[in-house]
Amino acid sequence: LALSRAEAKNLKALSTKKGRRLAGQFVAEGVRLLEEAERHGIRPERVYVAPSIMSERSAALVARYRSSRVPLTELSGSDLARLAATEKSQGILAVFPIPAAKTGELDLTSRRNVLLCENISDPGNLGTLIRSALAFGFESVALAGECAEPYSPKVVRASAGAIFGVTIAQITAGQIVLQARKSGLALIAAGLKGAADIEQALREQFGQGVILAVGSEAEGLSDVVVAAADKVVRIGHSDRVESLNAAIAGSILMKACFDRRTQRTR
Amino acid sequence: LALSRAEAKNLKALSTKKGRRLAGQFVAEGVRLLEEAERHGIRPERVYVAPSIMSERSAALVARYRSSRVPLTELSGSDLARLAATEKSQGILAVFPIPAAKTGELDLTSRRNVLLCENISDPGNLGTLIRSALAFGFESVALAGECAEPYSPKVVRASAGAIFGVTIAQITAGQIVLQARKSGLALIAAGLKGAADIEQALREQFGQGVILAVGSEAEGLSDVVVAAADKVVRIGHSDRVESLNAAIAGSILMKACFDRRTQRTR
Repeated sequence: LALSRAEAKNLKALSTKKGRRLAGQFVAEGVRLLEEAERHGIRPERVYVAPSIMSERSAALVARYRSSRVPLTELSGSDLARLAATEKSQGILAVFPIPAAKTGELDLTSRRNVLLCENISDPGNLGTLIRSALAFGFESVALAGECAEPYSPKVVRASAGAIFGVTIAQITAGQIVLQARKSGLALIAAGLKGAADIEQALREQFGQGVILAVGSEAEGLSDVVVAAADKVVRIGHSDRVESLNAAIAGSILMKACFDRRTQRTR
Repeated sequence: LALSRAEAKNLKALSTKKGRRLAGQFVAEGVRLLEEAERHGIRPERVYVAPSIMSERSAALVARYRSSRVPLTELSGSDLARLAATEKSQGILAVFPIPAAKTGELDLTSRRNVLLCENISDPGNLGTLIRSALAFGFESVALAGECAEPYSPKVVRASAGAIFGVTIAQITAGQIVLQARKSGLALIAAGLKGAADIEQALREQFGQGVILAVGSEAEGLSDVVVAAADKVVRIGHSDRVESLNAAIAGSILMKACFDRRTQRTR
């Protein structure tokens, strides 16, 4: 029931961006996130658990880890709490490998929807967008510009485990514009100045997949993306607010794409 | 260019829930939030500004404050940074009165839409819901159960100033159910187990206004609300995620109500 000093140091290092990059690993805390990883078939490299404070649900998960021979370390409740980033330790956390970064390349031939996040620097918004992306059939998420780091604890938590279900690619706006052209996917940009509403844009779009681009609230999308867009769309709302939250706007647009696709395949 | 110790202490006290309750005041930081307050006609009780670090936009706002005789205190940049809750001080913050709490009573006779938040404890989610509420014509927001405190810095920031445009009421689930009955507003509950989709629920609902109830992600809505609901609705999504973020779900449903109303009045 103890952790070597070196192991504790390695784990602590994963709380920084640099540490995660060097180790190629990230941490997910709590039984819910770990259950989501399991659901998406993602195996942890090592699990740290405090049997004294774990829930029944955690115990059941640990039993499954044991039977599939996932390396497990048992700790005291206080040792685990010291490792955890969240205030309320849930008695379990695990280290996962960061998937090989897809840089500048996405599998766009499969007619799947892609969410392009440009300069989404708020970790909560990025995590929420990733969660909605998986919910609404956007299983590839491309990050351009200065986005939050997708494997940081805040993004992982806000994604509610969806980070384990999507493919993340680091890309430039120029690269994705080129790929949209090559693949024939429609590039739809969310913007305040867009005239079309999303349903209309989707009616006029004949291909099966779309790349939906969402920019930062402060700056919007870059000129490169807006200029290359097949459609710029806006979400109608009362003029009593200036704009919508970026995660809300992106999710509403992805939901419209999801509904459209669901109707078509009925 | 200095702040008395007593004034600094009073301001610092507003960073705690207790301090805000005792003083009946809250703080909003940054030129964007203050511009939103201005847009909604809400006058600050006092403004603190650091002329040395303020933007042109702040300077213009300060000029308007001066001409309408809002009390202003000028500070050094470092003094203001010490008062600010955000890491990057924007050179300006202001103290506002907390509106008299409407407890157990909402103006439901006006056929307006009401958003009921039950146990939305995450400040980011609550602020985002308030922002979407104002965007989609839900200008009354009722808080039941253990919600985040609406005038805390995180909620105010996440609301992007929408907090200045909505009416907030603290209420119990039982009270709002009674009022829904009395006023004839339809009570629509967001829930995983609901069969109806929102468009269908809105088609079947003849009154003009709705009370839309959104619960916590972990627990959902209370039995009281679900049992009293005229409709329980769900948002269709892929089974690759367990659920949507509460602010996303609430916003998608409010958007559907907004679209429905906009279509009707065209």
